[in-house]
Amino acid sequence: MENSKLIGEYPFKVLPFEVDFRQKLTLPHLTNYILNSAGYHADSLGFGIKDVKESNKSWVITRLAIEINRYPKNDEKIRVRTWVDKVIRTFSLRNFAFLSQDGTEVLGYANSVWAMIDIDNRRPTDLTQIIPSEIFCDEPCPIAKVGKFPVADVDEFDSFSVKYSDVDFNQHLNSSKYIEHIIDSFTLFKFSKRDIKRFEIEYINESLFGERIAIHKKEVEAGKFVIELKNQAGTTICKSKVLFSDQTLNEEYIIK
Amino acid sequence: MENSKLIGEYPFKVLPFEVDFRQKLTLPHLTNYILNSAGYHADSLGFGIKDVKESNKSWVITRLAIEINRYPKNDEKIRVRTWVDKVIRTFSLRNFAFLSQDGTEVLGYANSVWAMIDIDNRRPTDLTQIIPSEIFCDEPCPIAKVGKFPVADVDEFDSFSVKYSDVDFNQHLNSSKYIEHIIDSFTLFKFSKRDIKRFEIEYINESLFGERIAIHKKEVEAGKFVIELKNQAGTTICKSKVLFSDQTLNEEYIIK
Repeated sequence: MENSKLIGEYPFKVLPFEVDFRQKLTLPHLTNYILNSAGYHADSLGFGIKDVKESNKSWVITRLAIEINRYPKNDEKIRVRTWVDKVIRTFSLRNFAFLSQDGTEVLGYANSVWAMIDIDNRRPTDLTQIIPSEIFCDEPCPIAKVGKFPVADVDEFDSFSVKYSDVDFNQHLNSSKYIEHIIDSFTLFKFSKRDIKRFEIEYINESLFGERIAIHKKEVEAGKFVIELKNQAGTTICKSKVLFSDQTLNEEYIIK
Repeated sequence: MENSKLIGEYPFKVLPFEVDFRQKLTLPHLTNYILNSAGYHADSLGFGIKDVKESNKSWVITRLAIEINRYPKNDEKIRVRTWVDKVIRTFSLRNFAFLSQDGTEVLGYANSVWAMIDIDNRRPTDLTQIIPSEIFCDEPCPIAKVGKFPVADVDEFDSFSVKYSDVDFNQHLNSSKYIEHIIDSFTLFKFSKRDIKRFEIEYINESLFGERIAIHKKEVEAGKFVIELKNQAGTTICKSKVLFSDQTLNEEYIIK
């Protein structure tokens, strides 16, 4: 099949509550666009969250890498394109491209890995029986996949408790809220000077309401951070990497 | 002019990241709908945030009361209607009604008070010169306005620091994030039994990045809470009231 038929494309308009103090879309809200687009596309192909719930299954995202050339601003309309790259046994690889409204500018790319688990026993499903190879699409997504994570062998930097607004309908810490808590470990001063160029996360364990989560954050190279979240038992719930742009921003922001 | 011409009506679709563990739209996300609708309507009438910025002014919300009969659920489409009730010197009174997609069910109402301030000296503007009385609309909004707040004369319940994701483009704690932090002082167990029937907030002071905000929460009557946020100097930044429904919910939710 032609690539164009295999790609879902969804419009989004950046809303005031989704932008930061620089009027740029935040990474957690971009992640909401990513998750929504993945949901819309899976629904359109018949294996969305509602379809698979009938057989007591649910989709979980396990890895996500995002690279951004330019963050869209308040009020800007963008297009999110998404497609299934391929399926490897229990994993589905899904890619994303972020385009300007007129389609002429590529704002960035993302790639992700998903598993379909049984809601009761959490066991993964053989996806080769569910997602036909006819829908695989070889559209280019020229960014690296999630790589290895250096160890964040540092003391706790900060912590948070999982609250009502943090949890999704499974009562687990919401996928984009992991990212919000990670990004919130940086100051406005940092964002006044640089953008996040690349972000990677590996979701390792779920977290429930009321859990206290420790943030371990280490700068492994200049502008490159590894951030690990751990629960009270010391179990890692996710690992992430945040890479800031080399160049300082052209715009000037004065922090109040 | 006919009321129908004076009322702005905006469609919203409830997205997965906007719902809680019960699949119901959360109050902070409903507040985003309210703020967006107010913005769209003011834009359409020529006194939106972009229009008034030319004279170095900005809109700030000072009071908000919300009453909900039924919270919309994940994927549900709703309509938000908004109109200017009237202007009293430096204050504009704006009302809202939340309707089901087909318009037959009223999900709830809200009323709000806004001021237009000078960005530099924070002084309020005489709105009678800016908002013509021809656009005032006497459409009914049958809920009480924000009332007096009993004192929350209790010790600190919890606290939070204002982070990157909490601030808006003015670098102030975002209006809907005040509400998120207030609502997050309740447990999933509470929401598994009851809905918030009525919510009131008075925005008193702004809060900047890095400030530590204390939450003072007192149950003044059964199911009726007063919650006050205070900064490190002990200054109150907002007062709020949360009233839970008398009846326990028909639905059953099991907390993990």
